[in-house]
Amino acid sequence: MSEILVVGSLAYDSIKSPEGEVEKSLGGSANFFSIAASHYAPVRVVGVVGNDYTDADENVLKERKNIDVSGIQKIKDGKTFHWKGKYEGDLSEAITLQTELNVFEHFDPKLPENFKSSSHVFLANIDPVLQMHVLNQIQKPQLTAMDTMNFWIMSKVTDVKALLKKIDILFINEGEAKLLTEKANAISASEEILKMGPKAVLIKRGEYGVFVRTQDGMAVLPAYPISIVTDPTGAGDTFAGACFGYLCKAGKFDLHTLKKACVHGTAMASMTVEKFGMARLREATSGELTQRRAKLLEISTFSAE
Amino acid sequence: MSEILVVGSLAYDSIKSPEGEVEKSLGGSANFFSIAASHYAPVRVVGVVGNDYTDADENVLKERKNIDVSGIQKIKDGKTFHWKGKYEGDLSEAITLQTELNVFEHFDPKLPENFKSSSHVFLANIDPVLQMHVLNQIQKPQLTAMDTMNFWIMSKVTDVKALLKKIDILFINEGEAKLLTEKANAISASEEILKMGPKAVLIKRGEYGVFVRTQDGMAVLPAYPISIVTDPTGAGDTFAGACFGYLCKAGKFDLHTLKKACVHGTAMASMTVEKFGMARLREATSGELTQRRAKLLEISTFSAE
Repeated sequence: MSEILVVGSLAYDSIKSPEGEVEKSLGGSANFFSIAASHYAPVRVVGVVGNDYTDADENVLKERKNIDVSGIQKIKDGKTFHWKGKYEGDLSEAITLQTELNVFEHFDPKLPENFKSSSHVFLANIDPVLQMHVLNQIQKPQLTAMDTMNFWIMSKVTDVKALLKKIDILFINEGEAKLLTEKANAISASEEILKMGPKAVLIKRGEYGVFVRTQDGMAVLPAYPISIVTDPTGAGDTFAGACFGYLCKAGKFDLHTLKKACVHGTAMASMTVEKFGMARLREATSGELTQRRAKLLEISTFSAE
Repeated sequence: MSEILVVGSLAYDSIKSPEGEVEKSLGGSANFFSIAASHYAPVRVVGVVGNDYTDADENVLKERKNIDVSGIQKIKDGKTFHWKGKYEGDLSEAITLQTELNVFEHFDPKLPENFKSSSHVFLANIDPVLQMHVLNQIQKPQLTAMDTMNFWIMSKVTDVKALLKKIDILFINEGEAKLLTEKANAISASEEILKMGPKAVLIKRGEYGVFVRTQDGMAVLPAYPISIVTDPTGAGDTFAGACFGYLCKAGKFDLHTLKKACVHGTAMASMTVEKFGMARLREATSGELTQRRAKLLEISTFSAE
């Protein structure tokens, strides 16, 4: 039996975009990832919330029969992580206005005993020291992946690089891949990243889709076309969730399988951006996901003669 | 018999990029376009050069048996158009340092009589008033296309829009498509552009490839992967040349044919960026172009199950 352990944030996000704004809407990498991944495999969540985290929000993961929330700590005298940001113009970049770490500041991820045998591990974007701490608690992972961000690359690059030596797949934004490698484009950055340890790297390009690289080759998939993007927050975590969920179900991660996983991740991520927060992702049905994968393949299938 | 008439610039470019620099290297939209298109169909060039335009540079087009240069005027007391620019970082944008219009300032495109029956017309990026002037001289074009740029969209948008009502295909950079339509992404910008007149729009995205839109649907093709881009100057004109050349040869421009044309355009454009100026494009062989198209299709072919 395969199952995914994910450690990441459970958060409240206050977001402004050209399409409107929301105050303290449910978010966080572990939330987006888990919902997406749960379409493919059982998910075990490790994270921390404060006393302001509502029962209704807790239920978003709990109500799904293949998500185990017993690794979520609730800190009685603390507040949930809160991110405030905005998007402008083409919405390609989040502008952070405020970050309140709150309960995340002293987060010590402790895994329930039965989580330690998880076959698949996803370390969402948190402090690389905590990512390593979680990874070290897993007995014998079959497949491991991580995400990271510019903040950690700039402040704790040694820890990020130590992790890269231990994990199989890196999920990373294009700008951050260039920052990490000091290369000018995804092609040369991905070459450099493979030298750092991972067997595969998935470079997330927002509205331009995803660039995949392994020792066996590369692949480029466009994003699913959405005319009006309301809120890109969580799209990358949603992509990673469906992608890694697909890999868990498939039981392998060769280039051919990774390409299929990216189609699943891309279709799922296109849901997330259509509404603020997790609203659209939560209501995604397998029928509409199948339709989106078909349309994505249609617009990206070419021939030369 | 089908043949392409192109009007555009014949220029000297002084270019600096992270990979080096060149002084007064041969360039201009009509030069790049013609070489690329000549792989597919006969090309007739309309343009203007000064007395500094060398015989060797004239020969670059003249030596190709299916390029007719009799529409190139040589102004005895004038100098050739000169552009000076640089690229930094990810080379996604050209920074113009100097533009000397020279003989282009009073360019009055006069077509040789036998050019007026051309079946296919490409109006490369020049003043939209001149583009219209050329188009009006063509008796009965079967297929017409144009390119433009931010300078004309900002200074002569009425002329640009008048042209859009008369042409079949618009080739345009993504940033310029957004500028023209005041939309946030290629999907909504392309919807808007189709309302302005063209039956198809090809949005050029540099290292992210091309976005295609017609009334029948859309398509997204990545760029051919190049680890080290030396000089992107002329890549868009090369793309347009091979793409439009393919369409001329095919004799149709439905979405299916446009997609094939984009594969040809993308492979050809990947040549241009590998060296400064036209050096790499000029030596491109049909064998290596076939190889690049095959590799491009390989990295962009996906399935879901």
